[in-house]
Amino acid sequence: MAFSEFRPLDENSLIEYIKATPSLSSKIVDNYDGLKIKEVGDGNLNFVYIIVGPSGSFVIKQALPYVRLIGESWPMTKERAYFEALALKQHGALCPEHVPEVYHFDRTMSLIGMRYLEPPHIILRNGLIAGIEYPLLAEHMSEYMAKTLFCTSLLYRSTTEHKRAVAEFCGNVELCRLTEQVVFSDPYKVSEYNRWTSPYLDRDAETVREDNLLKIEIAELKSKFCERAQALIHGDLHTSSVMVTPDSTQVIDPEFAFYGPMGFDIGAFIGNLILAFFAQDGHAGQGNDSKSYKEWILKTIEDTWNLFHQKFTALWDEHKNGSGEAYLPAIYNNTELQKLIQEKYMKELFHDTLGFGAAKMIRRIVGVAHVEDFESIKEANIRADCEQRALELGKTLLKRRQEFVSISEVISAMKHVQS
Amino acid sequence: MAFSEFRPLDENSLIEYIKATPSLSSKIVDNYDGLKIKEVGDGNLNFVYIIVGPSGSFVIKQALPYVRLIGESWPMTKERAYFEALALKQHGALCPEHVPEVYHFDRTMSLIGMRYLEPPHIILRNGLIAGIEYPLLAEHMSEYMAKTLFCTSLLYRSTTEHKRAVAEFCGNVELCRLTEQVVFSDPYKVSEYNRWTSPYLDRDAETVREDNLLKIEIAELKSKFCERAQALIHGDLHTSSVMVTPDSTQVIDPEFAFYGPMGFDIGAFIGNLILAFFAQDGHAGQGNDSKSYKEWILKTIEDTWNLFHQKFTALWDEHKNGSGEAYLPAIYNNTELQKLIQEKYMKELFHDTLGFGAAKMIRRIVGVAHVEDFESIKEANIRADCEQRALELGKTLLKRRQEFVSISEVISAMKHVQS
Repeated sequence: MAFSEFRPLDENSLIEYIKATPSLSSKIVDNYDGLKIKEVGDGNLNFVYIIVGPSGSFVIKQALPYVRLIGESWPMTKERAYFEALALKQHGALCPEHVPEVYHFDRTMSLIGMRYLEPPHIILRNGLIAGIEYPLLAEHMSEYMAKTLFCTSLLYRSTTEHKRAVAEFCGNVELCRLTEQVVFSDPYKVSEYNRWTSPYLDRDAETVREDNLLKIEIAELKSKFCERAQALIHGDLHTSSVMVTPDSTQVIDPEFAFYGPMGFDIGAFIGNLILAFFAQDGHAGQGNDSKSYKEWILKTIEDTWNLFHQKFTALWDEHKNGSGEAYLPAIYNNTELQKLIQEKYMKELFHDTLGFGAAKMIRRIVGVAHVEDFESIKEANIRADCEQRALELGKTLLKRRQEFVSISEVISAMKHVQS
Repeated sequence: MAFSEFRPLDENSLIEYIKATPSLSSKIVDNYDGLKIKEVGDGNLNFVYIIVGPSGSFVIKQALPYVRLIGESWPMTKERAYFEALALKQHGALCPEHVPEVYHFDRTMSLIGMRYLEPPHIILRNGLIAGIEYPLLAEHMSEYMAKTLFCTSLLYRSTTEHKRAVAEFCGNVELCRLTEQVVFSDPYKVSEYNRWTSPYLDRDAETVREDNLLKIEIAELKSKFCERAQALIHGDLHTSSVMVTPDSTQVIDPEFAFYGPMGFDIGAFIGNLILAFFAQDGHAGQGNDSKSYKEWILKTIEDTWNLFHQKFTALWDEHKNGSGEAYLPAIYNNTELQKLIQEKYMKELFHDTLGFGAAKMIRRIVGVAHVEDFESIKEANIRADCEQRALELGKTLLKRRQEFVSISEVISAMKHVQS
């Protein structure tokens, strides 16, 4: 059976497809008796099937040629599956402990076969809303970000490898444009897609659209996002792109991957942790020990950056005489100089992280796509209070990120806004 | 007659090639009697033939699969001819008054047929050495740079157009690597290719290799060169890439073209004018009125930046409601904000220009490729004096470029170093 052109699979054709695909059928040892198939994706964005048999399991993810946001149909190339598979494979080769293995990719069908992240894996965002602590989260995410970002940058790669990869991922332009619109543009102008907790945040949303300084800063970040090919970034590294158990942390869904600024990934993750922090007050009294959980989130934010810094610079030290062409050892040939360039690089990356993190926070409050952390707070006035605090911090971080010297100052600012 | 694979042409096969190529034969109206053919290129880099007949003329430029620097054979893809032709056509479409027309391109043969820039066109650098004033030079070059840089940036283009073009020019990586080596690396380390006016500049060359601050700054510029796809730049815009008459200014040889930082082009041009300025003292007494000529160079530098600034921001104003996606009109929707973003953009571009210009000056004094402005000064001690002044200014501009607020401050610094 051949699929010579794209067609969306259903549960019946899925079985036929698996039977005709050795890299998938071998995973379940051709054992079709007792095979359980469950469709778990949003059918308007991607089909996601979980296939579990007595002898093995996997997931099938098929991209459809559109994306759905807020009830509107929005055409979107199914070629995003190609870039998702490519990023999964490339990031997976660099950090197999935190990226699910790809078993199969079919470009015609926009279809990825990959590891099924079996229970008790859940979406990190849901864990955060439920108040579950993940003691290894900062360790794992900093490891993932340090390895994937360092090893796809010019600190590790030659210009020749870099430009070839940059050119390939330029093809993922439609997804980049979507980010440009929903993160860097829509929240700062009147847009039919924007929404917020009305009427409580009406004035706040208006203020964002009238703040010249904020608009100057978001333009600078947008320019970096569009022009700076620093590393192969995940491109959508919020807390719903991470699946967790107490022991395991797995990064999924890199369909927005391209060569962009590293801070966009680190900021996305940290920014979403900050949102989780401010949402906690809305979840109090639901059985969580909100105060100690908020302390854990703060510690996780602080540890994530500090461990990232430590791991990233350790990789740099380890490979400083390697094939990376940014800083040739014959030039950067003394300890003092190496220290100075690392400090300069990490300082800029820190400020990028805060800026992009802030942009991701702001767009989740006054833009099109909101986060379940806030959405799950039923009382609008309580939700609005939480969102206002997060928005205030986001605006401060975006406008004054250069003034922050360390992540502990960000923690202090969070506590200050929150009290 | 077919040329199904690459072969270097000689004068005989050239005639056959022209006869078989209508876009070329039509230029001379198939009139082969009295046709004059002259080979004017460096045979080790490119063949350049001038073909002049009674009824018309053109130039044939054929790239060979290597480049020659300082007696060493250095393989270099002949695909550079493809990017040169592409850049000539794209820049030519944007600024036909200052880019010679391409009549024919043959990718297999790495061969460009283009307008012959007839006498009295000469290489600008030779005109500068001879002390010739070009009253329209600043006007023309600022026009060329403003149009080509603005119209290939996200100020004018959509992300979709931009990423497609960026991807294509990533293919010109070998030429980018050559620039990385000779501009951003070799001058700052021990390299067999480096040379300088020895023994006079021995200590100066050593100082460049030992200056941590200089190395930190050159790394920042290299990172921009490698990662920032701001616009389609010429990539080698020194004064030998410009041909002039008193009325005409034509930019040639964009084989290094790719999507990089705008300041690299503006800096290359201004940096080479600064070198011409400091070389004048070595040419004094050769019949030039050195003092007034130096004043003209200073005025040309000042006018080039100021006119570029004026023309670039005028294009921006003209197209602010166009298809460029960097600053959407719905966001940047008030006069004050537009003024602020332009000031910020132009300030960064000015500092990039000074930094890249300085890097291009330094590499011409202690790196592999020198400029005829200095080389033509026969007395080594006089040449060394001129070079030392230029090197001192280059180092100041590279390290302290952020402190310069206007081009007139650069002129003052030049006068200060020179006196």
